[in-house]
Amino acid sequence: MDCLFCKIVEGSIPAKVLMETDNVLVFHDIQPAAPVHVLIIPKKHIASMNDVTAEDLGVIGEMHQAAQQAARKLGVDQSGYRLINNCGPDSGQAVHHLHYHLLGGAKLGALTGISGSHA
Amino acid sequence: MDCLFCKIVEGSIPAKVLMETDNVLVFHDIQPAAPVHVLIIPKKHIASMNDVTAEDLGVIGEMHQAAQQAARKLGVDQSGYRLINNCGPDSGQAVHHLHYHLLGGAKLGALTGISGSHA
Repeated sequence: MDCLFCKIVEGSIPAKVLMETDNVLVFHDIQPAAPVHVLIIPKKHIASMNDVTAEDLGVIGEMHQAAQQAARKLGVDQSGYRLINNCGPDSGQAVHHLHYHLLGGAKLGALTGISGSHA
Repeated sequence: MDCLFCKIVEGSIPAKVLMETDNVLVFHDIQPAAPVHVLIIPKKHIASMNDVTAEDLGVIGEMHQAAQQAARKLGVDQSGYRLINNCGPDSGQAVHHLHYHLLGGAKLGALTGISGSHA
């Protein structure tokens, strides 16, 4: 499988791993967009949110438990953090292996990069 | 409970509802930050991602199934969409009832509003 994140799961491409469970890996983004920026992925290859099936809902839950734990480990659980999943072209999804960004460590501001959007 | 989203669930405050299931409600954001902007909430009051317990993981899964369905209904499943959960002060979480934003209908750009961040 020619997937960057599958190679990180296998260990054939290095990553700065924060946490690992049976089904989930959390590692630091190589191009951080905030002082804290980790990626939360299922070890199983799922291309995007559109490809999540009923059988995958358990791992979605595990990814959220990992997000809570990662926020605590990184010291942003009380200061605040943002979880983001990008799916498809308009979102800027860059790697076609499901992932949540966890961002924190600074005031995060706008929800999108749309010019003039207010929220 | 003095919670805006609980009042929307009860029907005592109106909202433009897109979808409803036994445990999840999807409605349009009153201040859209993108051409498509809906909120996906559990009917149960959960204050934030930090407050999600092991018993809540089922509804987290249901929220993601609802997100997939909402993206299809809104015609952004192929063009792309972003799911965002804000938790705590740095994130800009405005309502203390767990919610995912689903944004789409335009190129969404930056992950955060941090000046100079590149992703």
